[in-house]
Amino acid sequence: MRLSILGCYSATPRALNNTTSQVLEINSHMFLIDCGEGAQVQLRKHKVKFNRIKHIFISHLHGDHFFGLVGLISTFRLLTREADLHIYGPKGIKEVVTLQMKLADSWTNFNLYFHELTSTESELIFEDDKVEVYTIPLNHRVYTNGFLFKAKEGARKLDVQAAQEAHIDVAYYRKLTQGFDVENKKGIVISNNAVTKPGPRPKSYAFCSDTMYKEDIVPIIKNVDVLYHESTFLEQHAHLTSKTKHSTAMEAARIAQKAGVGTLVLGHYSTRYDGLNAFKEEAQSVFERVELAEDGKVFDF
Amino acid sequence: MRLSILGCYSATPRALNNTTSQVLEINSHMFLIDCGEGAQVQLRKHKVKFNRIKHIFISHLHGDHFFGLVGLISTFRLLTREADLHIYGPKGIKEVVTLQMKLADSWTNFNLYFHELTSTESELIFEDDKVEVYTIPLNHRVYTNGFLFKAKEGARKLDVQAAQEAHIDVAYYRKLTQGFDVENKKGIVISNNAVTKPGPRPKSYAFCSDTMYKEDIVPIIKNVDVLYHESTFLEQHAHLTSKTKHSTAMEAARIAQKAGVGTLVLGHYSTRYDGLNAFKEEAQSVFERVELAEDGKVFDF
Repeated sequence: MRLSILGCYSATPRALNNTTSQVLEINSHMFLIDCGEGAQVQLRKHKVKFNRIKHIFISHLHGDHFFGLVGLISTFRLLTREADLHIYGPKGIKEVVTLQMKLADSWTNFNLYFHELTSTESELIFEDDKVEVYTIPLNHRVYTNGFLFKAKEGARKLDVQAAQEAHIDVAYYRKLTQGFDVENKKGIVISNNAVTKPGPRPKSYAFCSDTMYKEDIVPIIKNVDVLYHESTFLEQHAHLTSKTKHSTAMEAARIAQKAGVGTLVLGHYSTRYDGLNAFKEEAQSVFERVELAEDGKVFDF
Repeated sequence: MRLSILGCYSATPRALNNTTSQVLEINSHMFLIDCGEGAQVQLRKHKVKFNRIKHIFISHLHGDHFFGLVGLISTFRLLTREADLHIYGPKGIKEVVTLQMKLADSWTNFNLYFHELTSTESELIFEDDKVEVYTIPLNHRVYTNGFLFKAKEGARKLDVQAAQEAHIDVAYYRKLTQGFDVENKKGIVISNNAVTKPGPRPKSYAFCSDTMYKEDIVPIIKNVDVLYHESTFLEQHAHLTSKTKHSTAMEAARIAQKAGVGTLVLGHYSTRYDGLNAFKEEAQSVFERVELAEDGKVFDF
């Protein structure tokens, strides 16, 4: 599982601070999460193959999370993309994108599917044989969802020596990795567990931006490998969180600690602070395994 | 008159190529012309004081000319701007900006005035005591205007020695610079021309992007000091101009030559070419005084 941070700052893009956008590679999918202004240029800098992006998830319709979307779609069109594109985001996202296409008289030559979200309960919004994606309802000034990406169990690992000793025909090996019991050459059914082990544990990633402290999300994100949680502020500005509906680094850490996540990645920093170390230190006073998102950073989990 | 090129490439923003946006400083006004994605970051790089921008002119609603507008307005809001902002652009521009504000529940605390354009004839769209701005109807795939900026005649230059010799009271000097005749101390009317000279010749700038070759604009832009004319293609791709409704560098030069402009500035280059010198050479085969727009370049005229 690889997480590439295209941008992780709040509010407005600046020369050295891009607004929220991430690419998550998980079980051979490449998901784009949020799409602030300039995300397409960041994608180019990261040398992401545009055609690999087939699903875009938009948390909410504040500009720093979606003003880059229409430009990216427009660029896909100019590059004569043919692959379908699925967009998941709050109700209204279809109207705003299609209005701009209409005004520009520029319709895509690929299929564009909008999946508009309105539920305030966590729901399954995407599933195939590799990955499930659920919403994580957040608490922000406008309707906002985080997203939970769960890789599915992959192929089981075959113990070749054990399979040989159990007299199983090689033709059945693939079936074994798929979890089936098989008959051996003597007609005896061999239990799958006897000759295979589980494959690598499937990874999970939860993206939670923007939100004020919301303990209700803990059961949804329980035990995820990686939690990205916004930390717009440090505790010294905790008084700003209820009006702006953002979190502090310490609050992000409390959520990580209660949910027992593997690693907490902080981001969505206000640009009022000099440097990011204070965010990490504050979070680590509650929860040890903290990483700082930074524009251009790539995490392999 | 100072022209700052924030971006001058066609189609899509890339790491080193910004889409169209310019700042024109003329007679103490600071006008923003077009606003491609990322223009606000370019404005920061140019250290433009955001509050000095009170008028934004959008030629047409293709993304590479206006996808940065809503982000810029949004940033003005976050910076707690109070000054009025006037936006001139094709009908539809108000709907698309206000829809995004509505979806984000983020209304500006400054006054936002939309001046929607629909005429296919050149019209005066802004005037004060310093500058006039006219539309230049262009021929593109969607409704498009260029803009003609004309500084007004400034104060006349007083010949102090001549004024003293004509026995004019110092109290009348200001009136003289304003072009009035005055009575001297002996009660004789002194002709303004006798003691003043014209001030600096007022400058003019015509912005023409995007358009295919359109000779009708020549009378409108006749004798302007500076013409920015798009040159998406070189002549080797002239066959693409009628479908895309763009121009070649040579066509831009023909317009410049017919209009007798001071300087032609080329821009809106397709990124299919290596380097820009061929654009200049091609244009100079028709018209000598050619400059190449480049992202970050500042021209003083």
